[in-house]
Amino acid sequence: MVSLVIVGSIGLDDVETPFGAVQGALGGAASYAAYAAAFFVRPGIVSIAGKDFPDQYRELLMAKGIALEGIAPAEKTFRWTGSYAFDMNEAQTKKTELNAILDFQPNVPKSWRAAHYVLLGNIDPELQAQALAQFQSPRLVVLDSMNFWIQGKRKSLLEIIRQVDILVLNDAEARQLFETPNLAKAARKALLLGPRAVIWKKGEHGALLFTADSHFSAAGYPLEDIKDPTGCGDTFAGALIGYMAKHSAGVDDHVQLRRAMVHASALASFNAEDFSLMRLTRLTPEEISVRVAEFHRMREF
Amino acid sequence: MVSLVIVGSIGLDDVETPFGAVQGALGGAASYAAYAAAFFVRPGIVSIAGKDFPDQYRELLMAKGIALEGIAPAEKTFRWTGSYAFDMNEAQTKKTELNAILDFQPNVPKSWRAAHYVLLGNIDPELQAQALAQFQSPRLVVLDSMNFWIQGKRKSLLEIIRQVDILVLNDAEARQLFETPNLAKAARKALLLGPRAVIWKKGEHGALLFTADSHFSAAGYPLEDIKDPTGCGDTFAGALIGYMAKHSAGVDDHVQLRRAMVHASALASFNAEDFSLMRLTRLTPEEISVRVAEFHRMREF
Repeated sequence: MVSLVIVGSIGLDDVETPFGAVQGALGGAASYAAYAAAFFVRPGIVSIAGKDFPDQYRELLMAKGIALEGIAPAEKTFRWTGSYAFDMNEAQTKKTELNAILDFQPNVPKSWRAAHYVLLGNIDPELQAQALAQFQSPRLVVLDSMNFWIQGKRKSLLEIIRQVDILVLNDAEARQLFETPNLAKAARKALLLGPRAVIWKKGEHGALLFTADSHFSAAGYPLEDIKDPTGCGDTFAGALIGYMAKHSAGVDDHVQLRRAMVHASALASFNAEDFSLMRLTRLTPEEISVRVAEFHRMREF
Repeated sequence: MVSLVIVGSIGLDDVETPFGAVQGALGGAASYAAYAAAFFVRPGIVSIAGKDFPDQYRELLMAKGIALEGIAPAEKTFRWTGSYAFDMNEAQTKKTELNAILDFQPNVPKSWRAAHYVLLGNIDPELQAQALAQFQSPRLVVLDSMNFWIQGKRKSLLEIIRQVDILVLNDAEARQLFETPNLAKAARKALLLGPRAVIWKKGEHGALLFTADSHFSAAGYPLEDIKDPTGCGDTFAGALIGYMAKHSAGVDDHVQLRRAMVHASALASFNAEDFSLMRLTRLTPEEISVRVAEFHRMREF
């Protein structure tokens, strides 16, 4: 039984950072998010992948308990080529080949449509809306997006935001979408649209949660060795909804939501320690517990 | 009895932000730091000010219990003219008139030289060293600096850093001085120089504390209305050492050091709510307690 469905891209990434490079590595928002969520529940992916998508990547995902029946076939897989400069703060996109993504029409497998937890990962907001419409009565819907859609499909994006429970964006995107440099103001504007919680991801600075009557600040983990930040935002979103699904929590359960954010921060910090999903594939539940405990200690006062 | 001495500039500021402007406003690192520290103890200022420094500003400082006998006389007070763009993140310096600062030779009043707490605020590191040499056996010395000295007097700055207990810099300065984009690595390098604790101020993102064997992340307060961030870093440093002095705490008392950072974050967040020291002059101990409690609530998980 798939209780959590993750909609988004699957990709093959060429990434270069000051600490190394990978070619044709497993990537895409749905891959990272599903793998992170799979530490908590058994998620299913709704996406599209080409004939060139290696079997070993499918096996890697399946071995983690991720259901792949929602991945439609295509000729060529989405590919992204990017690099990071020395400060590792922002990816420089060198090339994007949409390939399969151009033909993507999300089709949620019938038996998944009763799923209670839905993550609309970063894709065209019109496709996010198409996907969401296929679910019967999801209990918690989380939406992530990016600057590309804020610029190109602002209206569609604002429309789908009205239909979700939690909006997740990074801080620059939040400022851009809500046209204010102030993150608290951006959150107030977002909450007026409909979501009952908004989360601004701030990379190394952690993440902020805003609800109508409270806010929460999750710390970033002060990593000394960052190899590749690709997918950290997707990892965060996947772990967040995975944790909520595991605990059957709704958006108004602020205790679980805060814990979900801390677990999401922990997984995202691990993800940056190696290329592609390599660190996540080695990650143990014990390591997650240790880092979450560390998050407790590093904030006690 | 002055238990805490604050060395640094006193200035008159012309500041413009999207939310208003002030001319000839009370400013300077020592003014902000001393006023913030005075919420906890009775500090003394070692600085220099001109004949043009208004009596009302002296009275404002004295009324808060700040001792001014360490302020040397001069012709013209240091003046700074700056502005902030819409995002309020970084000051644009339009004009700096050093004036009195050019003649500044710190002279710590004899009766203050037994003080246990010393804040070497942001001035020429050679003057910081001259000032520090006048103290008999300070228990806790905190040093703040800025990019201007990192560029211009790097060697002198590194020398004085070796002699202090806590180094406080903002994150961009930490990256610049220790030549790494990674704040955890910068902290490790700083600790190797001699300080037993380093604190990186991150503005709206809070502040990080690193010691040899622990780290702490103090949240930023998500302010909706920021009028003028001038002096927030100085306010942070002043409140930090003021809190430590009030509790007779040394650098290795990590419990008090963390509490000091949270109080410092609280005072810095208030300071941004109005121009110059205006918000601090209206601030009550009760408001500080409420915000510190809020810092507790916004991190519970």
